[in-house]
Amino acid sequence: MEKRVKRIFNNLEEKLDIILIKNSSEPFIDENFFYVTGLQKGLFEGAVAVLFPDGKIDLIVSELESETASKTNLNLEIYRNEGDFEKILKKSYTKYSNIGLNYNGVKHKDYLRLKKIFFNSNLKDVSNAFAKTRAVKENSELELMKKAANISDRVMEKIPEILCKGMSEHELAAEINYLMQKNGADKPAFETISSFGENTAEPHYTHGDKKIESGDFIICDFGASYKKYNSDITRTFVFGDASSKQKEMYQTVLKAQKTGFDKISEDVKACEVHKVVEDFIDNTSFKGHFIHSTGHSLGMLVHDGGPGFRTGCEEKLKQNMVLTVEPGVYIAGYGGVRIEDDVVVKKDGIEILTKSSRDFIEI
Amino acid sequence: MEKRVKRIFNNLEEKLDIILIKNSSEPFIDENFFYVTGLQKGLFEGAVAVLFPDGKIDLIVSELESETASKTNLNLEIYRNEGDFEKILKKSYTKYSNIGLNYNGVKHKDYLRLKKIFFNSNLKDVSNAFAKTRAVKENSELELMKKAANISDRVMEKIPEILCKGMSEHELAAEINYLMQKNGADKPAFETISSFGENTAEPHYTHGDKKIESGDFIICDFGASYKKYNSDITRTFVFGDASSKQKEMYQTVLKAQKTGFDKISEDVKACEVHKVVEDFIDNTSFKGHFIHSTGHSLGMLVHDGGPGFRTGCEEKLKQNMVLTVEPGVYIAGYGGVRIEDDVVVKKDGIEILTKSSRDFIEI
Repeated sequence: MEKRVKRIFNNLEEKLDIILIKNSSEPFIDENFFYVTGLQKGLFEGAVAVLFPDGKIDLIVSELESETASKTNLNLEIYRNEGDFEKILKKSYTKYSNIGLNYNGVKHKDYLRLKKIFFNSNLKDVSNAFAKTRAVKENSELELMKKAANISDRVMEKIPEILCKGMSEHELAAEINYLMQKNGADKPAFETISSFGENTAEPHYTHGDKKIESGDFIICDFGASYKKYNSDITRTFVFGDASSKQKEMYQTVLKAQKTGFDKISEDVKACEVHKVVEDFIDNTSFKGHFIHSTGHSLGMLVHDGGPGFRTGCEEKLKQNMVLTVEPGVYIAGYGGVRIEDDVVVKKDGIEILTKSSRDFIEI
Repeated sequence: MEKRVKRIFNNLEEKLDIILIKNSSEPFIDENFFYVTGLQKGLFEGAVAVLFPDGKIDLIVSELESETASKTNLNLEIYRNEGDFEKILKKSYTKYSNIGLNYNGVKHKDYLRLKKIFFNSNLKDVSNAFAKTRAVKENSELELMKKAANISDRVMEKIPEILCKGMSEHELAAEINYLMQKNGADKPAFETISSFGENTAEPHYTHGDKKIESGDFIICDFGASYKKYNSDITRTFVFGDASSKQKEMYQTVLKAQKTGFDKISEDVKACEVHKVVEDFIDNTSFKGHFIHSTGHSLGMLVHDGGPGFRTGCEEKLKQNMVLTVEPGVYIAGYGGVRIEDDVVVKKDGIEILTKSSRDFIEI
């Protein structure tokens, strides 16, 4: 992980002596803690990682995590209580003048607490350096993301077999999550969306009591979390025979996604990808029904810190960034279609990580 | 929810004009947003709830969540982009002088952003008022927690049937999570712990490749999340015949838990409960092997904001607080035992929400 830490320091806007990553209690855990330590297990609530410009890392962890932490080769300090914790920070780190902190991963309350301990130092926001470093994936990260994508593919392919008459959205979500874990996922990357019928018109609806009915749209949007890395895939099916309107919606979204794929390559501005996709949909009878952005960076977080395919994101794509491409069309009271895949930006195009069929399927 | 909001204002240390709850993106979501709105579904990334002393609430949400939010009767403002968002805040809320913010639920970066918008107002920390209000559960909350506890009970009771020769920790975790969802959980309350053998000596170890072997301790520690409320239960089993040392460890922890149960009632200091449990264990041959606190508040968060059974927590227990009681004994390289239940504090004792048998079970 030394190289990774050095890359973070290289991406800083100004020179700093050390960087602190401070976890709070769940859910306020800064995933950068795992990014820099390489730890793939454990909670590490309240833990601190101290990064040095030469790539070295000190870990300050509670006794509860000491056994897990001792499996790393990092310099380890163990605290038993809050008093201990502050003593360790004061003894070893308050001597530094310029200290980086991820303002995007630390609670305001923890910031105030650290500011009190480091009253003599300058605290500086390093969230941009973390986002910049993490946006471009290393090969080892891409391998984990391929594995996460592969798990979600295997589950998606099973859905037409699993889904049967009378099944509820809740039940389908349970089956999806179970299959992901059986296929090696540590957990779902986020709350699985398995919506039927009218509910598919709400992009953020997850699942409820509704039972599948003939003619319903089915949106399955889920991902696998594998060794801290995530996949994120969406497919839309129809239960029984699809109407011509449903088919038209599907083909529109599919072609919109293809337009997005074709636009992506190194040095393209992220917002331009969203523009071609949105323009494509707005030139059809579904104008105005694409109500979210085209995609987001993907990595240790499902909505990772890098660029997104959205209006206003002028950032240029770089090789080995990973993003989702997920156009959708939503008609309130009727239903929606969304198709989503995870892609790696390459010099002249993309590599698609999620490989499930995008053919229109009537179950 | 008007009454709930009024209780929060009543618990403030100073008078305020409004309180803002600001969600960031996952995982940095302030569960108080759901506490005050009563919403049980949706992500509400980037959303703001504005609370007024008379109990009224305004919601500011992105277009993506507008359909879900419209199911409430709350006053709704919808924003399309960041510019919109700031305009809404400036137009309607910067006129207030004293504004509360949950410093325990807002990222430092979001705090700075709000501070810029509300440069003319005083921002005050209201995390204590939220913690205080939420620590004492309303009847409607206790009903949801009973349901969550009941789901985890039903799953725990199945474990001796499910667990079979050759099964791995991963596989058992997948079965537990599946059964929880099948029994009505929205999701696991936290990453399920299903550890075998030596791994049971690490309190925060979750699950890995290890397969069950004869004589292994098995720790199952999981909970159901049901309509935003959580349960948290732990049982320890032995696979095959237990040794006398294993039996002794188990009985020690079981008796320690009973000692804790007996100590709990209204007006007892939280730290005193921990003290009797720790003292009990330290008077056995397992002295020094109980390495964490006896329990934590439970609610919308698994580690909720109220008092905990730990050294230094001088807070007095109140009726209808819900906490876990989870003593453990851990021997590195050998294994551990933990038994955990969720209890409601009553005037003269407790009501135990989790009802699974605590008898020693050799599977």
